[in-house]
Amino acid sequence: MGIVFIHFTMSLDGFISKPDGMDIAWMFKYGGDDEMAERLMGEIGAVVLGNKDFREGTVTEDSLPYGGMKVPQFVVTHHAREPVTIGPLTFTFVTDGIEQTIKLAKEAAGDKWVALLGASIAQQCLKAGLVDEIVVNLAPILLGDGISLFDRLGSEYELKLEEAVTAGQVTTHRFSVVR
Amino acid sequence: MGIVFIHFTMSLDGFISKPDGMDIAWMFKYGGDDEMAERLMGEIGAVVLGNKDFREGTVTEDSLPYGGMKVPQFVVTHHAREPVTIGPLTFTFVTDGIEQTIKLAKEAAGDKWVALLGASIAQQCLKAGLVDEIVVNLAPILLGDGISLFDRLGSEYELKLEEAVTAGQVTTHRFSVVR
Repeated sequence: MGIVFIHFTMSLDGFISKPDGMDIAWMFKYGGDDEMAERLMGEIGAVVLGNKDFREGTVTEDSLPYGGMKVPQFVVTHHAREPVTIGPLTFTFVTDGIEQTIKLAKEAAGDKWVALLGASIAQQCLKAGLVDEIVVNLAPILLGDGISLFDRLGSEYELKLEEAVTAGQVTTHRFSVVR
Repeated sequence: MGIVFIHFTMSLDGFISKPDGMDIAWMFKYGGDDEMAERLMGEIGAVVLGNKDFREGTVTEDSLPYGGMKVPQFVVTHHAREPVTIGPLTFTFVTDGIEQTIKLAKEAAGDKWVALLGASIAQQCLKAGLVDEIVVNLAPILLGDGISLFDRLGSEYELKLEEAVTAGQVTTHRFSVVR
């Protein structure tokens, strides 16, 4: 069975987007390691995201997770809802909590990996011990404020650096979570 | 004239120490690139630190900045005070504000570099446009809480990655601040 991983571009001060949560233009200024990005993309078999990301229009036909890559999409929510199709993707809403959502996503992904979208989902999964790997593209900028990827988790998590690749201005780090 | 730089080991979630500010044992678990560390140490001609760091006993005979390396030490403070000598180091207290302190430190350092100690001083100098370079050893751990190196600076600062070296579990990044 595949792993569950977090994959973000983060500023040196730990933000993944500016305060309004929408302005991610800064992110596209920075390339990363294409080879590693393509390799990771090829591993993804399902995506889990929060309902906030879904609801607030981060997900539109022009802005789909991983460019609309056709894998099952699961939205963690409190409100039961029929699946929604946007462009090529169908989003399934799961109301049984994060653990059950990850379980469904892992089953759907088979041998492939489950990618987590959004800082809130990433943090919830870390706290629930559901994250296997963390991939961070460290961007050469201090955003000064915004949505913090890890925020203050409250507990300590030991990591192991599996890989670090510098491409242009960005260093991509792949960590596993030590259990 | 030398540059002013910030030099820290930071957890992936942006902390330089645990909440009490004292427990930095976690830091010593992680080596970094020795060659780069030695090169940077050799460049340092003066150290600037905050009075809080000085006052709260972070600075003791057993725990001196850069292992007691004999360069001029300047403490930014609001309260005038005679110089204090601890072990081989003499600390000069400057009450004229951060800009004046950096000016004095740069003069004392000559062609060498001024190192900033403590997150508060680092942030104040960044905001005042006084920082030339930022060196971060990224440690493979999420501390979950603690003293945040950059916190929420409130403004954006563009950086340029000058160098990235991975040694063992730590990647050392040297950035210049773009002006």
